[in-house]
Amino acid sequence: MAAPSDIEDLIGLMARLPGLGPRSARRAVLQLLKKRGPLMAPLAQAMAHVALSARDCTVCGNIGTSDLCPICADPKRDTGEICVVEDVADLWAMERAGVFRGRYHVLGGTLSALDGVRPEDLRIPQLVARVREDGAREVILALNATVDGQTTAHYIADALSGSAAQVSSLGQGVPIGGELDYLDDGTIGAALRARRRF
Amino acid sequence: MAAPSDIEDLIGLMARLPGLGPRSARRAVLQLLKKRGPLMAPLAQAMAHVALSARDCTVCGNIGTSDLCPICADPKRDTGEICVVEDVADLWAMERAGVFRGRYHVLGGTLSALDGVRPEDLRIPQLVARVREDGAREVILALNATVDGQTTAHYIADALSGSAAQVSSLGQGVPIGGELDYLDDGTIGAALRARRRF
Repeated sequence: MAAPSDIEDLIGLMARLPGLGPRSARRAVLQLLKKRGPLMAPLAQAMAHVALSARDCTVCGNIGTSDLCPICADPKRDTGEICVVEDVADLWAMERAGVFRGRYHVLGGTLSALDGVRPEDLRIPQLVARVREDGAREVILALNATVDGQTTAHYIADALSGSAAQVSSLGQGVPIGGELDYLDDGTIGAALRARRRF
Repeated sequence: MAAPSDIEDLIGLMARLPGLGPRSARRAVLQLLKKRGPLMAPLAQAMAHVALSARDCTVCGNIGTSDLCPICADPKRDTGEICVVEDVADLWAMERAGVFRGRYHVLGGTLSALDGVRPEDLRIPQLVARVREDGAREVILALNATVDGQTTAHYIADALSGSAAQVSSLGQGVPIGGELDYLDDGTIGAALRARRRF
């Protein structure tokens, strides 16, 4: 190898990021090496800072830089509505949409008999306790429309059946900008069942 | 944004890497956040270390962690053969092939009238001086087969015409494993001109 071993080590670590393979990690590191001052040093510093300061929110499981994430710390967010998501990425996607003003609960995955993921492995007991303690009016299950996601949604709905909160799930149908010709049969079926008066 | 500003800053810096856009940078940072201990902290450390220690080899322009790169510091590499490449990435590609046992000279780009890149902006004067001082037998122009690459190759061949070194360039033709059907006309033409007795 032409590169010294510490540069090769850096390439090896970069290659473990999603979306980067060995070849694109090499290209990324070369780019960093060319921009050592303006890009590489600030990136290393930002990464070290976040690696040290990031922690899971003790209430909702979102990732922040203090024990309470910015959303749980925001008194303007409605505590009566809890949106349940699988993952922090889903929480961020919901926030990008900018339409939900309640709070979140990140499960950290979905139930899976195959992979041995049980309710206690997710943050489901904490959700049940939180709904009871906060007296939430509504729990919105914003889980992925996959088999595992929907299994988990059913489990949570059952677990919450004793509480006062209403349990709902995201609407299903044709995505905005979607063309029928490109949609799968399941989506078209769901959209037909969810049809509304025009 | 659901992420605190320092995580957003990190995403913004990651998005400036080649091969990562805003969306994949977000995914990469989420992955890092999930693996803070095993991946994010070592990556930040490796990056900070390389950002501090990396420097351009004073002889050939390769990137190393000392004033002489591993190749220029290796007494077993033949000083009589100098392979001229545009970029460090090209040097690494040559080294991966593992067939060249001489030394390199990295130009740092190609001549370009449009972008105002002149011979003094590249490391061409250093190359001419080095060939004369080292008494190199052969200079191999391993420049990309693009218009700018070939213009630069012609310029260097002219600049070296007074020296004792023989100037050569990489062979052109059908790549190993290449199918004629998928090759462009220029490559097929070059391969026909470079035909050999079977």
